[in-house]
Amino acid sequence: MDWTIDRLPYDATHRDFRATVRRFFAKEMEENGDRFESEGRTDRAFWQRGGELGLLGAQVPEEWGGPGLDMTYGLLVSEELAYAGAPNGFQTHSDVCIDYILHYGPDEMKARWLPRTVDGSAICAIAMTEPGAGSDLRAIRSTARRDGDHFIVNGSKTYISNGQNADIMITAVRTSSESPALSLLLIEADDPGFRRGRNLDKIGQHGADTSEIFLEDVRVPVANLIGTEGRGLATLVQQLPQERLSIAASCQAMAQRAYDEAVAFTRDRKAFGKAVIDFQNTRFVLAAIKARLQVGWAHLDWAIVRHVKGELTADEAAAAKLWHADMLWDVVDQALQLHGGAGYMNEYPIARLWRDARVMRIYGGTSEIMKELIGRGL
Amino acid sequence: MDWTIDRLPYDATHRDFRATVRRFFAKEMEENGDRFESEGRTDRAFWQRGGELGLLGAQVPEEWGGPGLDMTYGLLVSEELAYAGAPNGFQTHSDVCIDYILHYGPDEMKARWLPRTVDGSAICAIAMTEPGAGSDLRAIRSTARRDGDHFIVNGSKTYISNGQNADIMITAVRTSSESPALSLLLIEADDPGFRRGRNLDKIGQHGADTSEIFLEDVRVPVANLIGTEGRGLATLVQQLPQERLSIAASCQAMAQRAYDEAVAFTRDRKAFGKAVIDFQNTRFVLAAIKARLQVGWAHLDWAIVRHVKGELTADEAAAAKLWHADMLWDVVDQALQLHGGAGYMNEYPIARLWRDARVMRIYGGTSEIMKELIGRGL
Amino acid sequence: MDWTIDRLPYDATHRDFRATVRRFFAKEMEENGDRFESEGRTDRAFWQRGGELGLLGAQVPEEWGGPGLDMTYGLLVSEELAYAGAPNGFQTHSDVCIDYILHYGPDEMKARWLPRTVDGSAICAIAMTEPGAGSDLRAIRSTARRDGDHFIVNGSKTYISNGQNADIMITAVRTSSESPALSLLLIEADDPGFRRGRNLDKIGQHGADTSEIFLEDVRVPVANLIGTEGRGLATLVQQLPQERLSIAASCQAMAQRAYDEAVAFTRDRKAFGKAVIDFQNTRFVLAAIKARLQVGWAHLDWAIVRHVKGELTADEAAAAKLWHADMLWDVVDQALQLHGGAGYMNEYPIARLWRDARVMRIYGGTSEIMKELIGRGL
Amino acid sequence: MDWTIDRLPYDATHRDFRATVRRFFAKEMEENGDRFESEGRTDRAFWQRGGELGLLGAQVPEEWGGPGLDMTYGLLVSEELAYAGAPNGFQTHSDVCIDYILHYGPDEMKARWLPRTVDGSAICAIAMTEPGAGSDLRAIRSTARRDGDHFIVNGSKTYISNGQNADIMITAVRTSSESPALSLLLIEADDPGFRRGRNLDKIGQHGADTSEIFLEDVRVPVANLIGTEGRGLATLVQQLPQERLSIAASCQAMAQRAYDEAVAFTRDRKAFGKAVIDFQNTRFVLAAIKARLQVGWAHLDWAIVRHVKGELTADEAAAAKLWHADMLWDVVDQALQLHGGAGYMNEYPIARLWRDARVMRIYGGTSEIMKELIGRGL
Repeated sequence: MDWTIDRLPYDATHRDFRATVRRFFAKEMEENGDRFESEGRTDRAFWQRGGELGLLGAQVPEEWGGPGLDMTYGLLVSEELAYAGAPNGFQTHSDVCIDYILHYGPDEMKARWLPRTVDGSAICAIAMTEPGAGSDLRAIRSTARRDGDHFIVNGSKTYISNGQNADIMITAVRTSSESPALSLLLIEADDPGFRRGRNLDKIGQHGADTSEIFLEDVRVPVANLIGTEGRGLATLVQQLPQERLSIAASCQAMAQRAYDEAVAFTRDRKAFGKAVIDFQNTRFVLAAIKARLQVGWAHLDWAIVRHVKGELTADEAAAAKLWHADMLWDVVDQALQLHGGAGYMNEYPIARLWRDARVMRIYGGTSEIMKELIGRGL
Repeated sequence: MDWTIDRLPYDATHRDFRATVRRFFAKEMEENGDRFESEGRTDRAFWQRGGELGLLGAQVPEEWGGPGLDMTYGLLVSEELAYAGAPNGFQTHSDVCIDYILHYGPDEMKARWLPRTVDGSAICAIAMTEPGAGSDLRAIRSTARRDGDHFIVNGSKTYISNGQNADIMITAVRTSSESPALSLLLIEADDPGFRRGRNLDKIGQHGADTSEIFLEDVRVPVANLIGTEGRGLATLVQQLPQERLSIAASCQAMAQRAYDEAVAFTRDRKAFGKAVIDFQNTRFVLAAIKARLQVGWAHLDWAIVRHVKGELTADEAAAAKLWHADMLWDVVDQALQLHGGAGYMNEYPIARLWRDARVMRIYGGTSEIMKELIGRGL
Repeated sequence: MDWTIDRLPYDATHRDFRATVRRFFAKEMEENGDRFESEGRTDRAFWQRGGELGLLGAQVPEEWGGPGLDMTYGLLVSEELAYAGAPNGFQTHSDVCIDYILHYGPDEMKARWLPRTVDGSAICAIAMTEPGAGSDLRAIRSTARRDGDHFIVNGSKTYISNGQNADIMITAVRTSSESPALSLLLIEADDPGFRRGRNLDKIGQHGADTSEIFLEDVRVPVANLIGTEGRGLATLVQQLPQERLSIAASCQAMAQRAYDEAVAFTRDRKAFGKAVIDFQNTRFVLAAIKARLQVGWAHLDWAIVRHVKGELTADEAAAAKLWHADMLWDVVDQALQLHGGAGYMNEYPIARLWRDARVMRIYGGTSEIMKELIGRGL
Repeated sequence: MDWTIDRLPYDATHRDFRATVRRFFAKEMEENGDRFESEGRTDRAFWQRGGELGLLGAQVPEEWGGPGLDMTYGLLVSEELAYAGAPNGFQTHSDVCIDYILHYGPDEMKARWLPRTVDGSAICAIAMTEPGAGSDLRAIRSTARRDGDHFIVNGSKTYISNGQNADIMITAVRTSSESPALSLLLIEADDPGFRRGRNLDKIGQHGADTSEIFLEDVRVPVANLIGTEGRGLATLVQQLPQERLSIAASCQAMAQRAYDEAVAFTRDRKAFGKAVIDFQNTRFVLAAIKARLQVGWAHLDWAIVRHVKGELTADEAAAAKLWHADMLWDVVDQALQLHGGAGYMNEYPIARLWRDARVMRIYGGTSEIMKELIGRGL
């Protein structure tokens, strides 16, 4: 099978769109990739070009300024982002954040922000994790105290994707100090009291900014509530499957890229008088990877079709995230090893891919959290 | 997802059929399973009951005495066979052997044998492997010397599934001593010179007979050629994908059964004051298995749909066989481990399942051969 | 290194002894191995020949009828037992049971039984596990009610090695129904009320009998207490390291045997025109095994030396059992795979070795229990 | 066991020395570690302080300006270097390069250079690998053409550890264009025609410089031959075991550090209301690592003792390198995972350790080359 063509959830329109997207990311990475890496973030121009091309918020209906497509387009963009080794800020923005506003925001919020999320002029982040709390949503301590028509928000967040770039941030807080119930608030980055911390120095994903965020007496209008007050956890639980599916799609495409790199490298590189790919060990390693990729694409497509029909359960999404992230890791690590010494050099794409890939078993919920979730449903 | 219901290649008719098949195998295994195991084979009565119920040769057209369905029914039977822990003779017969006669046999052969393969009165085997030659088809040394309208066949075969029960045997031979080109002959078990060796003593799969076969001056009519003389390898290559897909389906269903056994056992068994399933390690192991099963079912269905459309390539079938067999092994071994001491006792279903499962990485081409095949196509 | 020669804990005397032991087991297995397998136990004649040769209870001092050597001799016997694929009853008897009597039994008990454990006329078992309780010593429910100078013992045990052959059985019971405190009693098999259940049908280790034992109002003299009443757990904890080290030694020797079988087989077997060992994949698999065996022997010797000096901690012994058992499993499974179809046939030594090896991750405490134990000490 | 104390090859003198070394590296890393990382190399002052403390060339005899100890001291330094996460330039210098001069250099070379290698004023590198040739020594194309009392050397080298810092470089070249036979030459960095390429941008090991080296008509006196002309391969083969043992020692110490970091982190970090270390999964992962570390230390010590006695074979050293590097990788990756999101942040020691560790399966000969070497001796 050719995964760019033969896919159950994708039709001819997607194929044309994919070609456009692939060209765009390839060109961007060639022209700007190294700069994004060294600056530790993408610039707004990249977002705007993406917006112009229709790569952001494909699921946003026309009435709110979007093309009114479905999630398959966002997932396709995420696949291509991952395959290109491009920073994953678009993914967080489109596949994760926008639906909170779209499905749970009041109409004024939609009218104000959705068109700008689509054209790339407003970058969105989501802030759950807090320092020292990891994946445990019940340990969130940021508070939003009601004060008339506003909440006064205090707290700090960390590991926030798009944290440096974000214009708006969906933020999980407690609106009552007595109860651990969460609420979600849209906070604007130019609100007084909103402060970005350092752009965190990560193992990889250097082109994607990740930050700490500090909130000090930030006044947020009550109208910025996303979903019902105190029902934030239910909203998150509702939306997390899409995030996890999107990460699974990225993992699959990154694994494919790692395989493609390893095939190309071992075909080219000679050792002991023949191409490295002609050694039985190389062929066996690549063959086993190829089998896993086949399995992975079939599963991913099953999950996408199911998600679009609204049937993908939280457990199934967690299983997808778990499996594709673990598979990616095995694949990218073996692909690096097939590069020998070159694999350790950042100038080779596999080295960056490998560093970028390591976070996939961690973010969006670690593999351990995925097992915990699936295990609860046994 | 519920794998007995929610499957892409299967519709409501399949669902009813599956229910019938499952009841049949469950009843048979309860009544006769232990006897089959201790006798090292299934008896012909089992085959006849299977034939009456329509479990054999579902793909055989009505003109040759079959129901004229497609391979999905055979694969469904193979899944249920595997899930029930029933001997896999039906699978060899229906998913592997029959299509050689159906697609490459002359009409007289079809007229004579196909109705009997469907009603269970003629049991079919296929004989490729020879002592000392393993999976290497080029090492086949059995010969068929032309003598007028007959071939005189000499040689020996081993690891032949259904070898004790078989009435007819599709046999790979060289029809020329100068060339390694293979031909396929239908040999009847009551031909003079056809002799069955021992029923081999295997680690598992005790209810399925496996034999050496000795051929000494067996006279086989030229009309018993399956496919063109000297083109046997091409015919095998054409048919092997279906065999491999069928094995992949078995592996998947066996893995599901192992998981179901482990869930049931650990729910029931107490240790240190709580159910074993309530330990985090147990839940994590089961959760990871559940994720792999989900992935496996999705992939299997993708492959079945593709096969029925005639699109599954040899490489894809090899990848399926490789992946599902390896996955099965990991799963069944972990499932046994979760049984503690009970897992080592043959009275527990998991112990037999585990012994049965070990052959899946070996027969129908070892995992190494699958990698070799996939590796050639890189 | 040659593991039969170059070993830190063993000197020239051990080397001569090893040669004798190896010859003995090789001869026994050739003459009687298949019979032991089919009968599901070894006969007493085997024990007596072993006793005559000095293979039992080497650590028993001369005053109690033994040769007065140290544990290195027992461990050496266990290594050779495992390498030969001989039933492991001697190991349970010598490395596990005897030390309970030797270190915790009263002198009359020693005088009566130790000479007979050394000459092979009294076979010893140890009974901890109970039906449904697994490795959880706190779940033991067998009771010993005091009645004058006797205990009246009731309960049932399972998975008892040497259960069919045993003349005496060290039995863990509760001597008080109010407290979970354990006591150890020596029970004689001809005591009224002692009844052997079935010889359990296992995946492997067929030459070693394993049984359920039923105790119904068995009258046991108070003098048969091993160690202090109510302090059985402490005694067990004291002795378990030696059992675990002994199992680790067996695992290492079995793994070496599996490797030796795989090397011999792949050297001999041809495929695609060359010896199987000449394929890169075969060599890589064998090379990685060889490296693990080297590491394993070095570690085993470190542990033996440490144990003989009385320095091996419970955690270290658990780590040894865990690591060697897991290593063995990987090795023996890969060694089987290198045999292709032959590996699944019981007539090949690897098949029996493989079936025998599976219990090593389970008995003497499962790998999970080992992790639990080590984990507590973190 | 406490691996800083209870070690077979090390006595009380080593223990005191280790304490000194540990303090030195800890202080250096605290004061200069980040700077070394960001500058991509260590400065000469670090080398000189190391020389003053006796950390370089411990095996150099007093007549050549050294302390006249044995390799155990160098290996101890390499362990501590690795445990501290310090750049591994000392290791290349002391455990790899010096012995070439010491055992194969002429006396004038020893007199001139050895004292300076000991006091840290001359830094040594070894240059084997060439662009595109990887671990294949037969593919070396650099040439040394004889011209009177000199060789004229041309060629290029890559992945040269200490390549930026080196004052002298042991260089593998062909001295005859007709034959692939290698010779080793000591080349001085201020020789005309010696040019350093870029300091390579690696995944990790940022404090240790790695370079391309270009040699253009470099005139090297014939007296700079190390060993016999044309016998360079034999010399390399003689010295590689020590290099591999030294890498194995580093891997073991790095793995220990990764474990120590994971224990400390999971003890400290809370999730879902308890310390992360109190989850069964965490304990099981750590327990299995602890077992592997125990096994690893035992094996390392066996190998060191054997090496010091001159008995460690090339195969055994390759097996040690293979096993410890693979073990390290599993351990450090699991240790990172136990850190959750923090593990991906370079500010945590585990992140740097993990990036540094990845090269261990590659340099000094990849794991595949190790298997190839061991496999040849089967």
